[in-house]
Amino acid sequence: MRVIGIGPGGPDQLTVEAVAALNEVDVFVVPVKDRGVDDLVAVREEICRRHVTGAHRIVEVPDPPRDRSPADYEATVSAWHEARAVAVETVLAGLGADQVAGLLVWGDPSLYDSHLRIVERILARGVLSFPYDVVPGVSSVQLLAARHRIVLHRVGEPVTITTGRRLLGTVEGGADNLVVMLDGDLTCRRLSGDWEVWWGANLGTAAEVLVHGPLRDVLPRIEELRARAKAERGWVMDTYLLRRCPSG
Amino acid sequence: MRVIGIGPGGPDQLTVEAVAALNEVDVFVVPVKDRGVDDLVAVREEICRRHVTGAHRIVEVPDPPRDRSPADYEATVSAWHEARAVAVETVLAGLGADQVAGLLVWGDPSLYDSHLRIVERILARGVLSFPYDVVPGVSSVQLLAARHRIVLHRVGEPVTITTGRRLLGTVEGGADNLVVMLDGDLTCRRLSGDWEVWWGANLGTAAEVLVHGPLRDVLPRIEELRARAKAERGWVMDTYLLRRCPSG
Repeated sequence: MRVIGIGPGGPDQLTVEAVAALNEVDVFVVPVKDRGVDDLVAVREEICRRHVTGAHRIVEVPDPPRDRSPADYEATVSAWHEARAVAVETVLAGLGADQVAGLLVWGDPSLYDSHLRIVERILARGVLSFPYDVVPGVSSVQLLAARHRIVLHRVGEPVTITTGRRLLGTVEGGADNLVVMLDGDLTCRRLSGDWEVWWGANLGTAAEVLVHGPLRDVLPRIEELRARAKAERGWVMDTYLLRRCPSG
Repeated sequence: MRVIGIGPGGPDQLTVEAVAALNEVDVFVVPVKDRGVDDLVAVREEICRRHVTGAHRIVEVPDPPRDRSPADYEATVSAWHEARAVAVETVLAGLGADQVAGLLVWGDPSLYDSHLRIVERILARGVLSFPYDVVPGVSSVQLLAARHRIVLHRVGEPVTITTGRRLLGTVEGGADNLVVMLDGDLTCRRLSGDWEVWWGANLGTAAEVLVHGPLRDVLPRIEELRARAKAERGWVMDTYLLRRCPSG
């Protein structure tokens, strides 16, 4: 099996190595979200059309439903991973012994993505056994930085990548440079103190928008653009870098 | 000007978009380190040979000397950036108005890399004026994760990317998942408590080595492999993920 990072949005933001890996895959196993992110499906299809030359098959696996605001976050995610593992395992069990399966991952598999956890679960279940490797991809974090033409940190400083859910706790820990992902609520609205923000939505797509400035000044603009993007397409994917302003 | 991330080591770990950008460059401006990292120069040349089809020119710019253990870190880095900016500016000033310059960046320009700071300095000096964009690349952080086939964090947790110089301070701040870069001293030797480590050196090259395990158990093995790699090639580039073990 190949687990292939296909980059953060555009059809040419995957690596030459990823293109080679795509072409070694016989069957792409594609979990299909219950949400209507049709643009993302279109980009994925465009990637296959543009970069896969040989015969291949796409098997869509309906994604198990998932509670997005659960009382017990970790248990809910774990149950969802298990349901997804069983669904993917069922498809894999139907493949021939010499067929190579491929999982396509938006961005890079190492950040806030469940594909590797699902592969590990399938192997841990012990029903199937297979070798697999991982092809890294550019993540939306890096595309955000590229579009704003910035380094994520001041010289020599650390940078923390976190989620909306964990943002306030991470800030309390003293982080000065934070990249926030998976934040449907713009949790940065609840921060105190002075921050600079570099925000981007739908990066790599035709609907890409960017905002940069002091957080308290540009927040209304971000809220407006975010709401508009969501109204127009039914979804929005955004990421942002926060940097604490030097005090005094 | 194009600032192009060319990935973390292998000649095919740059994106299709980066390949297109390389082919729009007339003159590659390449700072040359005073250290003998000949293997990296060879990979860079292999990337150009493999992926650049048209005519192009490479101008090497001797890197200004830099104190690697300065008393005042930030002032020393700043002076070095300025010297490097002046050296690159001199080359750019000699180009024709219609010539596109390209800067090649190992990994991704957004993490512990000075190219963007140098471009900003050149523009701030006001002698030259030019448009530029940034093409993101896969970083060694992502290649490390791919080789170990891991997600950088447990479900939903933050991950902090830091340097050897800042590791101990970052750990004191409470970070549980840390990727350490630019650590010539294996600073993790000075950590207390129980940690799991995923280490990789010379990632993406033929001399790639990986180690994974409890930090206190595998540290001697890492030290041995690190010393051997350095003895064989005169240099070693390594990166590692640390994860604090659950207590009790």
